[in-house]
Amino acid sequence: MPAGTRTILTLFAAAALLAARARQLGVPFDGTPGPMNAITDVAGLEVGHTTLISGDGHQAVRTGVTAVWPRGKQSSTPVFGGWFSLNGNGEMTGTTWLEESGLLDGPVLITNTHSVGVVRDSYIKWRLAWSRKAGLNIEDEWSLPVVAETWDGFLNDINGFHVQDRDVFAAVEAAKGGPVAEGNVGGGTGMVCYGFKGGIGTSSRKAGPYTVGVLVQCNCGRRAQLRIAGVPVGQEITGNEPYALNFRHSGEDYGSIIIVVATDAPLLPHQMKRLARRASLGLARTGSSSGNGSGDIFIAFSTANPDAGRTSGLATLSMLPNDEMNKLFEATAQATEEAIVNAMVGAETMTGFEGHTVIALPHDRLQELLKKYNRLAP
Amino acid sequence: MPAGTRTILTLFAAAALLAARARQLGVPFDGTPGPMNAITDVAGLEVGHTTLISGDGHQAVRTGVTAVWPRGKQSSTPVFGGWFSLNGNGEMTGTTWLEESGLLDGPVLITNTHSVGVVRDSYIKWRLAWSRKAGLNIEDEWSLPVVAETWDGFLNDINGFHVQDRDVFAAVEAAKGGPVAEGNVGGGTGMVCYGFKGGIGTSSRKAGPYTVGVLVQCNCGRRAQLRIAGVPVGQEITGNEPYALNFRHSGEDYGSIIIVVATDAPLLPHQMKRLARRASLGLARTGSSSGNGSGDIFIAFSTANPDAGRTSGLATLSMLPNDEMNKLFEATAQATEEAIVNAMVGAETMTGFEGHTVIALPHDRLQELLKKYNRLAP
Amino acid sequence: MPAGTRTILTLFAAAALLAARARQLGVPFDGTPGPMNAITDVAGLEVGHTTLISGDGHQAVRTGVTAVWPRGKQSSTPVFGGWFSLNGNGEMTGTTWLEESGLLDGPVLITNTHSVGVVRDSYIKWRLAWSRKAGLNIEDEWSLPVVAETWDGFLNDINGFHVQDRDVFAAVEAAKGGPVAEGNVGGGTGMVCYGFKGGIGTSSRKAGPYTVGVLVQCNCGRRAQLRIAGVPVGQEITGNEPYALNFRHSGEDYGSIIIVVATDAPLLPHQMKRLARRASLGLARTGSSSGNGSGDIFIAFSTANPDAGRTSGLATLSMLPNDEMNKLFEATAQATEEAIVNAMVGAETMTGFEGHTVIALPHDRLQELLKKYNRLAP
Amino acid sequence: MPAGTRTILTLFAAAALLAARARQLGVPFDGTPGPMNAITDVAGLEVGHTTLISGDGHQAVRTGVTAVWPRGKQSSTPVFGGWFSLNGNGEMTGTTWLEESGLLDGPVLITNTHSVGVVRDSYIKWRLAWSRKAGLNIEDEWSLPVVAETWDGFLNDINGFHVQDRDVFAAVEAAKGGPVAEGNVGGGTGMVCYGFKGGIGTSSRKAGPYTVGVLVQCNCGRRAQLRIAGVPVGQEITGNEPYALNFRHSGEDYGSIIIVVATDAPLLPHQMKRLARRASLGLARTGSSSGNGSGDIFIAFSTANPDAGRTSGLATLSMLPNDEMNKLFEATAQATEEAIVNAMVGAETMTGFEGHTVIALPHDRLQELLKKYNRLAP
Repeated sequence: MPAGTRTILTLFAAAALLAARARQLGVPFDGTPGPMNAITDVAGLEVGHTTLISGDGHQAVRTGVTAVWPRGKQSSTPVFGGWFSLNGNGEMTGTTWLEESGLLDGPVLITNTHSVGVVRDSYIKWRLAWSRKAGLNIEDEWSLPVVAETWDGFLNDINGFHVQDRDVFAAVEAAKGGPVAEGNVGGGTGMVCYGFKGGIGTSSRKAGPYTVGVLVQCNCGRRAQLRIAGVPVGQEITGNEPYALNFRHSGEDYGSIIIVVATDAPLLPHQMKRLARRASLGLARTGSSSGNGSGDIFIAFSTANPDAGRTSGLATLSMLPNDEMNKLFEATAQATEEAIVNAMVGAETMTGFEGHTVIALPHDRLQELLKKYNRLAP
Repeated sequence: MPAGTRTILTLFAAAALLAARARQLGVPFDGTPGPMNAITDVAGLEVGHTTLISGDGHQAVRTGVTAVWPRGKQSSTPVFGGWFSLNGNGEMTGTTWLEESGLLDGPVLITNTHSVGVVRDSYIKWRLAWSRKAGLNIEDEWSLPVVAETWDGFLNDINGFHVQDRDVFAAVEAAKGGPVAEGNVGGGTGMVCYGFKGGIGTSSRKAGPYTVGVLVQCNCGRRAQLRIAGVPVGQEITGNEPYALNFRHSGEDYGSIIIVVATDAPLLPHQMKRLARRASLGLARTGSSSGNGSGDIFIAFSTANPDAGRTSGLATLSMLPNDEMNKLFEATAQATEEAIVNAMVGAETMTGFEGHTVIALPHDRLQELLKKYNRLAP
Repeated sequence: MPAGTRTILTLFAAAALLAARARQLGVPFDGTPGPMNAITDVAGLEVGHTTLISGDGHQAVRTGVTAVWPRGKQSSTPVFGGWFSLNGNGEMTGTTWLEESGLLDGPVLITNTHSVGVVRDSYIKWRLAWSRKAGLNIEDEWSLPVVAETWDGFLNDINGFHVQDRDVFAAVEAAKGGPVAEGNVGGGTGMVCYGFKGGIGTSSRKAGPYTVGVLVQCNCGRRAQLRIAGVPVGQEITGNEPYALNFRHSGEDYGSIIIVVATDAPLLPHQMKRLARRASLGLARTGSSSGNGSGDIFIAFSTANPDAGRTSGLATLSMLPNDEMNKLFEATAQATEEAIVNAMVGAETMTGFEGHTVIALPHDRLQELLKKYNRLAP
Repeated sequence: MPAGTRTILTLFAAAALLAARARQLGVPFDGTPGPMNAITDVAGLEVGHTTLISGDGHQAVRTGVTAVWPRGKQSSTPVFGGWFSLNGNGEMTGTTWLEESGLLDGPVLITNTHSVGVVRDSYIKWRLAWSRKAGLNIEDEWSLPVVAETWDGFLNDINGFHVQDRDVFAAVEAAKGGPVAEGNVGGGTGMVCYGFKGGIGTSSRKAGPYTVGVLVQCNCGRRAQLRIAGVPVGQEITGNEPYALNFRHSGEDYGSIIIVVATDAPLLPHQMKRLARRASLGLARTGSSSGNGSGDIFIAFSTANPDAGRTSGLATLSMLPNDEMNKLFEATAQATEEAIVNAMVGAETMTGFEGHTVIALPHDRLQELLKKYNRLAP
């Protein structure tokens, strides 16, 4: 693809760019969000997007890369983490070492299914350059990056392999704190969720002195399944479902959802797995039954314990007891539910590959339905 | 405990004994249930309960045993199975071999936390007697029964260890097809669910040519979490929560839920694990965030493939492809959700250990709330 | 069984009772053992055995209970732990909560296959009595004890269910530090290993400033598989194999092995799982291929981090980095290998159920073979 | 890297190219190998290597790609598979879907650590071209290939990212049956094993009517650990250990081993996991304790059941009962042990990156040691 026909929108997540959010429309949610109601409410965490939108028809590029840096892009200090696969029709590289070591080193990267490889190797290149710049000996280094994906081939020319090294570098370096752009951005650019336009969504919860933040790349579910705040929205808003008849899985729950759960609570790796599993509960409340075609893979990490990644001597750690985790469990389920709805509320109607169109969740209809079921928040 | 002060109610599940069910009250559920809307809609499956209710105060016995026989109690043919622990603060014996072999041999037994051992060994005694009667050589036999539990110490003198051999034998032999008693019966006798009286509940779904049936022993959640058909019932009906202040975990989500998923669809062991995980989704829709104190352990099996347990030669098997499992996933989530509500609707207010009382979910209030939120089924 | 015909040998592990050990016979092993070359080299750890030997023929009782207390029987402070099932044809209760919580609370108990239930419930009774004595409120307590087993039905009347409450109490209370009796003791009383008499064995290794101790209840393998220090002992010493032709699995690798790995190195739960997996490597070096009938289930725990089981506030912990674990991995493999050989060297020829006899590994033949293969240690 | 300075050696595995093998040197192994003593003894299975050797010093390329096609490169029929991570310091993509679905679709690809991404995406390109050629609709296709790695940065300029699309295509298309080249070939080109030159090795066993074949990419262990047929070879042959002092992990067990286990026995996915775990036992017998830095990741599949990957209707399957798996377990452990020794025996001394040299296992010394320990096969 010649550079001239290509638009890279690296979104420096700014409040000005942010669209409406579910809560502003009157969707009622349980729990108390952090100041930005975003994963970046976890202090130090940074998010960067590279959004690739260009061309039409067979040349439609609607994809990107999202990078979530647990401790920010300046840090090479690992975090404790864990993961869970609710339905593993997807890829998340790096999980074997995450499971073994309990450590996540570097960002969580999210892209489309057929660009996982390039994102993985590109990140290694970026990391090597970073290490060289830092004067580190890289000769006996190796990297096992975490790269996840959902499939965007309905809107994006996924088999054109449009993500390149520079797009990965851009997402990684664009990462910053503050509000996070949602909807058709980053890895979520071309995604479809419950038959509406999906993408990136985020939310957070206060849990005692701690914060739980969630970011989703939401591409799952079929229309009829969608429930918002208990209201059967997907059964009420019919028509305009994507996936034409030439798609084998038309009308099926395929797609996928990647869920990233972050917290500043001092949890150990086995406790992070507990948190990752709770993302399932938030997803379930939006209606998914985690279809066979869905890669529903969740990762959770804690930014506490700066000593987690120590490589010699003894690390000194803090641990929140299991008995104190209930608030975090609820926070994770709640923030996941809201992040998914935020992804749909934040996304806009998109036309892409071969002229396929996916409509956005209509805000006015959503509000009517909340009213009909006596669930519109004041 | 002298036999004279003890009442064994072995409920031969009969329609006459069955209380109201959620659907009859107008709770709307997705999907189409089988004829009995019970796990016994899976052909050949049998359920037996031993219900122990006697005494008061410190001597209050409110417990029991429930047996779920995949192919009925006359059969020694194993079924393919799998399991999943959403939150493992509980016991389910036999899972290590289930995971390894893919086979479940014998019934799933459910009781209270402190009687798992006696139920396990008692079942082995029963099985040995059965084998001897059948003329089998038992000298090189061993058994690894599946026995699960939830904790009933708020209503039951759990530290009195009241379950005995005869109670296990009775549940195992009482097993039969047909309607299944719900609420305060069997292993569910003394259970508490979302701050209301819980216990045994069941439901089923048609999934194409197949049936999925679910039975729960429901003892989980705290009041404020409860959602029924999306309606925030637990936030509306306040007061009368159990667990007095002398309980450490007062107001916490502890308790537990055991979920048994049965199907006649021909699925392999790794596919049964997929089904078991979907029970989480049904549970989530009733509001639980699977608290730290909760043993949320699920087992799933398929009664297809009579050749599954062959021990020599080659077994001939059928398999439903992964691509055809979506209906079963939805069925599992739906039947789990309904089984939990059925457990609460079927249960009655109970006073037990030390005079503790747990109130039943008030049917009239539930109906009012469904109406308020425009969710009362016609 | 009338008390008069029953002999309870609660072995207070004393040096005087200890038989020869593999190392004394000149078997070469890698690594440096602790002072007692026993799991009790891990400071504070206590082991207790109840050995039940009585009767003959159909009434032959050859079984028992072994208790391994991580911090000694006076302590109710949990330890971090993890487990691994190399081949799950066996039972280890309590593992679901161990996996979830990362904590082991109470002893690891080992017995025969058909007595797991009674040992489990009996331990709960013992624990309740202990808590009452300590003035604790037990009303909202529950216990999920870890009880493992191997099958001793060739030498023991396993279907006579001879283990009783008092035997469990005795093992639990007999626990002490110091040398550990090996061979035909405790849960290992009636076990068979590589076609020789098996049972309890133990060993330890120094790993830098830390100690790794291993205790096995060894009941696995068939004769031809046995390798000791790389020497094909099982192929050289033929004849006198147990398991008569009326046993279905004659000549197969069935039986089982339970391996308990203890360390004082400060490891987190996910790291304990890493250690548990290394027990496989030590087992493999003795020749087993972990047969289908074998319950090869391993548990590992760390006695460091007294704060591991804190239930409120924040625990302060130490962690040895993953990068520093190699010595512990080698120590685990080495101590496991030696513990298995110690179990066989320490066991004596036994005649039991229906007159079945299992011969001990002949020490002189072992030494001849080590010499033949130039492996006899000086 | 300009094409002119680059040598691609795509080895069409031919008997003429094959070096000596362990068995020919008199190393005694248990069990009976298939006709070629190679993974290709499993009928239909094909192996292809691309070997990249060029340049010196900082430009030394010593790497490649190995492709193992379960049913040969002409087939798009999935096989049942499973995997196991003994120590997950490595990457094997595609395992999340393998675990979920029980299916392996396409080849197992093995390369160096920093080329996993390019190999993954390149294979997808190859597969799309293949599908287009076959007239298939690829618009709703996605691929989740299995790509594994071990680290070759001591001999190879791993941070030069030398593997390219064409190298992947070449390995995939070079695949054929017959003898398999061993040692410094394919993904194994630059590997180091127990301080000697490692690489690709293979072996097979007859197991009743079935065959088990193993292929390893062997890069693990430190010298002192090495045992061959029980003989402490690594303690006898000292000196010339690789990994200079500027390597952080000098003298440690790092590296990694990927083990591929293939069989024609009709096993289900959960049974394939059982086989994968047994690879650990063969590895253990060569001395490894699976060090922290080692990515010891194993995959197993069965070429039986051509109907395994059916996507609609019912698949008809055969299953070998668990009770009949013991021979397969032994075969897996034995063939793994021999494949590792074959990798070292087949490899030749290599000088590569920055002039680092790794010596081959000296055949004469090995034979002397086998003699010394009375283990030289006649």
